[in-house]
Amino acid sequence: MPPASPVSTRPRTLLPNPRVSPRFAGIATFCRYPRLEDVLPENRPIDWLLYGVPHDAGVTYRPGARFAPRAIREASQYVKRYHLEHKVDVCDRLSLADAGDAPVQPYDLKDTLDTVAAWATKTARAAGSSREPAKLLAVGGDHSIAYANLQATWALQGKPKGGLALIHFDSHLDTVDAVWGQQWGHASPFRRAIEAGIVNPRKMLSVGIKGPLNTADDLAFAKQQGVKIMTYADLHKKGTLDASPLRAFVKQLKQTPAYVTFDIDVVDPAFAPGTGTPCPGGLTSGEALDLLRALKGTNIVGADVVEVLPDRDPAGITAFLAAHVMFEVLALSV
Amino acid sequence: MPPASPVSTRPRTLLPNPRVSPRFAGIATFCRYPRLEDVLPENRPIDWLLYGVPHDAGVTYRPGARFAPRAIREASQYVKRYHLEHKVDVCDRLSLADAGDAPVQPYDLKDTLDTVAAWATKTARAAGSSREPAKLLAVGGDHSIAYANLQATWALQGKPKGGLALIHFDSHLDTVDAVWGQQWGHASPFRRAIEAGIVNPRKMLSVGIKGPLNTADDLAFAKQQGVKIMTYADLHKKGTLDASPLRAFVKQLKQTPAYVTFDIDVVDPAFAPGTGTPCPGGLTSGEALDLLRALKGTNIVGADVVEVLPDRDPAGITAFLAAHVMFEVLALSV
Amino acid sequence: MPPASPVSTRPRTLLPNPRVSPRFAGIATFCRYPRLEDVLPENRPIDWLLYGVPHDAGVTYRPGARFAPRAIREASQYVKRYHLEHKVDVCDRLSLADAGDAPVQPYDLKDTLDTVAAWATKTARAAGSSREPAKLLAVGGDHSIAYANLQATWALQGKPKGGLALIHFDSHLDTVDAVWGQQWGHASPFRRAIEAGIVNPRKMLSVGIKGPLNTADDLAFAKQQGVKIMTYADLHKKGTLDASPLRAFVKQLKQTPAYVTFDIDVVDPAFAPGTGTPCPGGLTSGEALDLLRALKGTNIVGADVVEVLPDRDPAGITAFLAAHVMFEVLALSV
Amino acid sequence: MPPASPVSTRPRTLLPNPRVSPRFAGIATFCRYPRLEDVLPENRPIDWLLYGVPHDAGVTYRPGARFAPRAIREASQYVKRYHLEHKVDVCDRLSLADAGDAPVQPYDLKDTLDTVAAWATKTARAAGSSREPAKLLAVGGDHSIAYANLQATWALQGKPKGGLALIHFDSHLDTVDAVWGQQWGHASPFRRAIEAGIVNPRKMLSVGIKGPLNTADDLAFAKQQGVKIMTYADLHKKGTLDASPLRAFVKQLKQTPAYVTFDIDVVDPAFAPGTGTPCPGGLTSGEALDLLRALKGTNIVGADVVEVLPDRDPAGITAFLAAHVMFEVLALSV
Amino acid sequence: MPPASPVSTRPRTLLPNPRVSPRFAGIATFCRYPRLEDVLPENRPIDWLLYGVPHDAGVTYRPGARFAPRAIREASQYVKRYHLEHKVDVCDRLSLADAGDAPVQPYDLKDTLDTVAAWATKTARAAGSSREPAKLLAVGGDHSIAYANLQATWALQGKPKGGLALIHFDSHLDTVDAVWGQQWGHASPFRRAIEAGIVNPRKMLSVGIKGPLNTADDLAFAKQQGVKIMTYADLHKKGTLDASPLRAFVKQLKQTPAYVTFDIDVVDPAFAPGTGTPCPGGLTSGEALDLLRALKGTNIVGADVVEVLPDRDPAGITAFLAAHVMFEVLALSV
Amino acid sequence: MPPASPVSTRPRTLLPNPRVSPRFAGIATFCRYPRLEDVLPENRPIDWLLYGVPHDAGVTYRPGARFAPRAIREASQYVKRYHLEHKVDVCDRLSLADAGDAPVQPYDLKDTLDTVAAWATKTARAAGSSREPAKLLAVGGDHSIAYANLQATWALQGKPKGGLALIHFDSHLDTVDAVWGQQWGHASPFRRAIEAGIVNPRKMLSVGIKGPLNTADDLAFAKQQGVKIMTYADLHKKGTLDASPLRAFVKQLKQTPAYVTFDIDVVDPAFAPGTGTPCPGGLTSGEALDLLRALKGTNIVGADVVEVLPDRDPAGITAFLAAHVMFEVLALSV
Repeated sequence: MPPASPVSTRPRTLLPNPRVSPRFAGIATFCRYPRLEDVLPENRPIDWLLYGVPHDAGVTYRPGARFAPRAIREASQYVKRYHLEHKVDVCDRLSLADAGDAPVQPYDLKDTLDTVAAWATKTARAAGSSREPAKLLAVGGDHSIAYANLQATWALQGKPKGGLALIHFDSHLDTVDAVWGQQWGHASPFRRAIEAGIVNPRKMLSVGIKGPLNTADDLAFAKQQGVKIMTYADLHKKGTLDASPLRAFVKQLKQTPAYVTFDIDVVDPAFAPGTGTPCPGGLTSGEALDLLRALKGTNIVGADVVEVLPDRDPAGITAFLAAHVMFEVLALSV
Repeated sequence: MPPASPVSTRPRTLLPNPRVSPRFAGIATFCRYPRLEDVLPENRPIDWLLYGVPHDAGVTYRPGARFAPRAIREASQYVKRYHLEHKVDVCDRLSLADAGDAPVQPYDLKDTLDTVAAWATKTARAAGSSREPAKLLAVGGDHSIAYANLQATWALQGKPKGGLALIHFDSHLDTVDAVWGQQWGHASPFRRAIEAGIVNPRKMLSVGIKGPLNTADDLAFAKQQGVKIMTYADLHKKGTLDASPLRAFVKQLKQTPAYVTFDIDVVDPAFAPGTGTPCPGGLTSGEALDLLRALKGTNIVGADVVEVLPDRDPAGITAFLAAHVMFEVLALSV
Repeated sequence: MPPASPVSTRPRTLLPNPRVSPRFAGIATFCRYPRLEDVLPENRPIDWLLYGVPHDAGVTYRPGARFAPRAIREASQYVKRYHLEHKVDVCDRLSLADAGDAPVQPYDLKDTLDTVAAWATKTARAAGSSREPAKLLAVGGDHSIAYANLQATWALQGKPKGGLALIHFDSHLDTVDAVWGQQWGHASPFRRAIEAGIVNPRKMLSVGIKGPLNTADDLAFAKQQGVKIMTYADLHKKGTLDASPLRAFVKQLKQTPAYVTFDIDVVDPAFAPGTGTPCPGGLTSGEALDLLRALKGTNIVGADVVEVLPDRDPAGITAFLAAHVMFEVLALSV
Repeated sequence: MPPASPVSTRPRTLLPNPRVSPRFAGIATFCRYPRLEDVLPENRPIDWLLYGVPHDAGVTYRPGARFAPRAIREASQYVKRYHLEHKVDVCDRLSLADAGDAPVQPYDLKDTLDTVAAWATKTARAAGSSREPAKLLAVGGDHSIAYANLQATWALQGKPKGGLALIHFDSHLDTVDAVWGQQWGHASPFRRAIEAGIVNPRKMLSVGIKGPLNTADDLAFAKQQGVKIMTYADLHKKGTLDASPLRAFVKQLKQTPAYVTFDIDVVDPAFAPGTGTPCPGGLTSGEALDLLRALKGTNIVGADVVEVLPDRDPAGITAFLAAHVMFEVLALSV
Repeated sequence: MPPASPVSTRPRTLLPNPRVSPRFAGIATFCRYPRLEDVLPENRPIDWLLYGVPHDAGVTYRPGARFAPRAIREASQYVKRYHLEHKVDVCDRLSLADAGDAPVQPYDLKDTLDTVAAWATKTARAAGSSREPAKLLAVGGDHSIAYANLQATWALQGKPKGGLALIHFDSHLDTVDAVWGQQWGHASPFRRAIEAGIVNPRKMLSVGIKGPLNTADDLAFAKQQGVKIMTYADLHKKGTLDASPLRAFVKQLKQTPAYVTFDIDVVDPAFAPGTGTPCPGGLTSGEALDLLRALKGTNIVGADVVEVLPDRDPAGITAFLAAHVMFEVLALSV
Repeated sequence: MPPASPVSTRPRTLLPNPRVSPRFAGIATFCRYPRLEDVLPENRPIDWLLYGVPHDAGVTYRPGARFAPRAIREASQYVKRYHLEHKVDVCDRLSLADAGDAPVQPYDLKDTLDTVAAWATKTARAAGSSREPAKLLAVGGDHSIAYANLQATWALQGKPKGGLALIHFDSHLDTVDAVWGQQWGHASPFRRAIEAGIVNPRKMLSVGIKGPLNTADDLAFAKQQGVKIMTYADLHKKGTLDASPLRAFVKQLKQTPAYVTFDIDVVDPAFAPGTGTPCPGGLTSGEALDLLRALKGTNIVGADVVEVLPDRDPAGITAFLAAHVMFEVLALSV
């Protein structure tokens, strides 16, 4: 976010006033933020670009997350702009835009990841200032797409040596080497990102991990690389959620550029039924939001929200929660 | 449709190629047609504007049609461009655009109808040529919004004496004087339009009417005014659907400017469960499409599709059918 | 119906005016007809009692029809009173009442049938006149409950020798001797009724029967007894529905007291997904209503609508159709 | 509740014995309590009247709460009578009745509120004793209807100077001045009630408030008026729910007549998906019930449960919870 | 089918008696037929193998058909054994078995097709006699898997010169060359099969084709190759369904080995909401079953049922219909 | 579990490798464990048999649990084998098999219970060793089936004097004497088991009990017999869940053979909407799993999971949780 962003008299993001134009009206963009093409010159450079990656060719179980960007756009119409706990109005303080969906094609996973990364990098450069490109908030799609957004974010940050810090909310570690011979699927993005030097494993934290696992060996890579794992049980050692270890972790990151990846299956299926590989006994949505708020102060330079599956979300609560996760990430950035 | 529209080498409507950009990608506009703002100069003037009217303050039973424009935008992503029976590619021949949603406010029905009519008239004038404004295809919303689009269409046609012809697909006549003291609700739009001279009752045909009724008296006004009523039973006198009376009706209209209003409840609840005042024993979707195709040759100058209720449409088939009804109307206009 | 019932200036059934009291308001009774206790003295004796039998202990596959009376009461709030084809207002002409639900207990099927039959007989006698008891329209529940209502109806008619005529809409014959040793389940009601002399098999017509069957032998009993079977294929010999054989059958019944039993699975699962033993390739709802209307002139003395399963009816269209089937039966009786 | 209500040998509310008459049988009234018309003389005067207000013309987003009274009547069939924690049988101790639905008409919000208030006042007076009218438990409908029930309750209490105490469970403050020019919508009931002197803002507590907000200004009115706000975060300062601030608040109310208004959106969408303006990160149902139980000892003189939206409640858990909220309120009153 | 199959005293397929072992009990196999491993020696060689192909990597729009084999196994528990129109008991006459699911892996479409074809060929050889291998009925998955089953069937038939006849039920032609560079997706199987000589285009009939199309050019390949196309409109020229052109087509096939491929989207979305690329205005299920029955006499040597999408099938009617389509194909083979 | 079970180099249960054979492929058995018939000789004797009891004739409210074994088989395809907290791979350590469904017939509850018990006893004897029969994990059906599995387990344990210990997770006590004259329904299994000496009431613990109750008397039998009751409120006395009383209870059981019965309605309807007699304000799934894990060290000799109702489980989360409850029970046994 722009370090010198004063409380301006003019909002940085022009949002339709819901007391003039109802939230159920209009072509749906993420949180009703303007399309990238429609951002006024005075609101450029843009701080964050939100974009969809309607891609689910990486799943190992239930497909359909390709329809998540649309479902989240719709659900996000009810996301408001003022954050009660952080006491900030994200639209006053940040210039936000919906860049549409990245180019994808479902028949070639690796090719799509490359295409998405290139498109996102270029779009963010054009939307930001020469000194500071726009930050990227990708909306999956399955978790495989995190690699593409990480890659783009890393490039936009100048490919820092040692890689980015990563704060990873998930039931699963996603560091499997390959499934069915596929190295780029949704079980593997962070293994690839660590291998590529994009993510620094010693500055990576996986939050909310739960069993059962396919095999105990699935923990090995992360442990060897020094990834910090906070299981659901670790977070609840004192009975109720304890966010202090998470706070301690992010505090020591200081100004390291950090990326937040949020797999919706980190919350319990009661709160997020619409996901492809759910895991029972997860966080409540209240706990998840609390953990996100505990990231305040972190230098977040990119993020994603993934694994929403609209066809298993009969009341729409999963997409609705995902939309608010996006908002929480943005609010951290003010 | 523009009389001089030759088969050009360049399509009149630029559509993303689904074999490059998948139908599940992108911010959803009606049938993937461009937003009005994005139409290229060479594709102006525009032939038809599609716009949503997310308004359901007129209902007498189940509300929720305010969410229909969004649901239909999503469902319409799978509408293709080439009409197999009419053998026309609507995008080659017509310049089409999504004008977004009209301004509405749910607390004042009459005020909203006035606002919508004014906005639509002005928008269509700006989008069309000086000689020929764009035609208006409104997507409700409940049936009360037909009045607004009729009013705009009538104005754009120069308020022809005697009013427009009206081809009305519905289970209900919608000519009740008032319900609970409200004259502008969804039971009354055509009574108001006849009274205002916008619709010529002797050139009005109501197709698919069915019982039961609240009272036999509900037929009186239409009959007195000379409205032609083809009940579901009338259409099936020979056992199977007979479209010839409909064909005969539209043939005698000759070049009279005609408006098509399509209440999705004219089809059976099996085909359109997502509607607020369903009626069992209705048309199949195949029959409804056949009847629409029988309008070929009519001078259609405006249209609407109304009464889709997404919350009662668990498999999305109602919105999907509505999207194809829009396509059928456009294909009549080539 | 009362032979001397002139078109009175006062309706025989007091119904809340939907243009004063909306259809979505009030404690739900069948079609908004008054509770039996609330019928005014001037509207007594009562012509038809509608009552629920929330019993599904007879099913062989999917249970849950015990919740159908409630679902149908709710769905029936939108049933109007004037029949467009027969041109009658049932509330002007008939005194109708909702008698609530019959006493049932799910752990003993035969005991429940006996209890229901006794309760219904007594209630109908009390509600009607000494000369003419009220007629009974039972809302199941599974098809086993038809036996109880048939038994009551037969008793109210003075147990006519030879039994009642029966017009039976169903995908299944329901004349199996026993399943799992149970003779009173939903596969057997008409076998029992024929054996008991309640139904005259030579005046019984089964309409809409379809395969596949468990065994060819399942046809034997009905054929031996002389039951007339019109399969779905028989009804469509000419491609489209031909109601004339049905008309011929009922015509020759003359004034024989006849009972109508309507298993909702006679219509296709598209029109009635909410049922326990569906059968694909069935009637449309339009065809089913046409067949019911073809019964005009029959001396109907009792009826039931059964096998609605609300938990498999996500859009409510099955209960909604069932409510209109009730209305069609009543309209035949004016 | 009547101060002298001894544990009688005869229950004050006659309830069908579920071990005789199954809970799935019978015309559905709230919790199976008798209709007002059916209450025996010996059970009069009545302590609490439950009534529906099928009205949703006040919503700013998703309509449909007009169908909530019916959905809650059905869901409430499984509400039992003995409260395990308070160790009271509400039917032994209180005379309870379902008064049906208040008169509404969806086309005029303010007129409906006036009509409801007048009807409720009159009905409660007639149902109670001359000294003590029946208390009113209204079942919405959207939150706008709280104003009507507050107005009636206030009148029945003799319009006490300074107004009623108000314990308000909600995600939202509902003290917006107006939306789209409408001062009586569901965003405004407590602003109007404070302005009218019906509610004493210094004895008003809003529990469970959450962001995001449309604007920080939305907090201003409540704060200026001295309303006490306990946000979700306030309640969870110690990690787990702490009900003691709530207990402290109600303790200092002493015998002030207090009204409880419960917007179902105060619980998380996982527990109440069926609501029109949900907010993620809310109370669990266990927490909500705990908070309600903490009101024990308060002099509750009226209440409402609002904002249930059946069409977004595929498994019925929202209406089911709402029915139990009603029971908790009644159990506080013994 | 075995030419010498007399009506034996012992059924060829051992089926649990539903009047002993309820249809809702037991591990679900297709239509309750035995697992291949469990078929008794006296019931070998096997006539038809039913197997699943849980593969949907070929879709261009909505994925999820990988879950169809399981959904159809469950829905098929209610498929009975005696065909009412053909008057045959398939279990008396044919030895049928469920061979489980073919090996698939979602990350490589072509590799999966090859693996499936090889596995199916080998399994059918082992299950049949040396003279006559078992026939293959594949349950998709998306339509791309038809290629694999066609290839296996063709091989089992001795790779007849000129290829197999093909009777193709579908809304789409599925002869597109490639989408997104992928030649093996669900838009292309019959183009590939024609090119490979597996299908004889002059003995190929596509039934139920409907628009709209992406482009008129999509018809070109099929027309050039001599494929016979019967559009939905062609089939309904006389208003009602006319099966005689279909009958004429199959009659001239004489004993040519023929394959039946049934894409569930050939029926209208009302009858088959659960599919990935639906098309409105399709066949009713009754019409589809009639057309299948009209194939009687054809020498069917292989078949598939594809494109069922359980996540869009809230009442399960699509899988239920698909299960009966399987039964109809088998009954043709007696 | 076998006391001498070393960590073998060969797994005791052969499971398809999900990275070879996808979890969405294959005929569904519980957790993909082999069918009993398919277990290799070297993996015999079997440690635990999982079997379904598709029986719901015992319910007092909403039926349909007969379909739970199938739904849970499907949902359990995603259950993995390595328990993260206990650090055990259940398939390495235990020989597990799916024995299919027990013989049931819905028309006679007591007869079915007897048949199930006899079948289970015999099957477990045959599957285990002469010294140690297989343990039985029954998957209901409604809670009445617990009696049958308890009876079988008790017999397999040599009918120990004093009976089995019982750890009972439920919202309800299930110790009612009879409902509608039926002593074997789902409200009574533990009363019958105590009376028969199968369960030792002084070693019985009911966890998660909640109100409201039908009557305070429903607590009397359990209290008189010395059953320990931990209500939901008892478990949360300190605000957050306190498992230590549960731990203390099971610790003092020492090696007493203990049975675990898990009624899914012990969790809140948000986590388990698909159940027949839900109760709001229940455990989260995380809490329920924690409590199960606290049983570590108990000598568990039998178990059941009951009351899953698939038709009320639109997103499948209830069956999914039930499948993981099964896994937790097995993991306790290593």
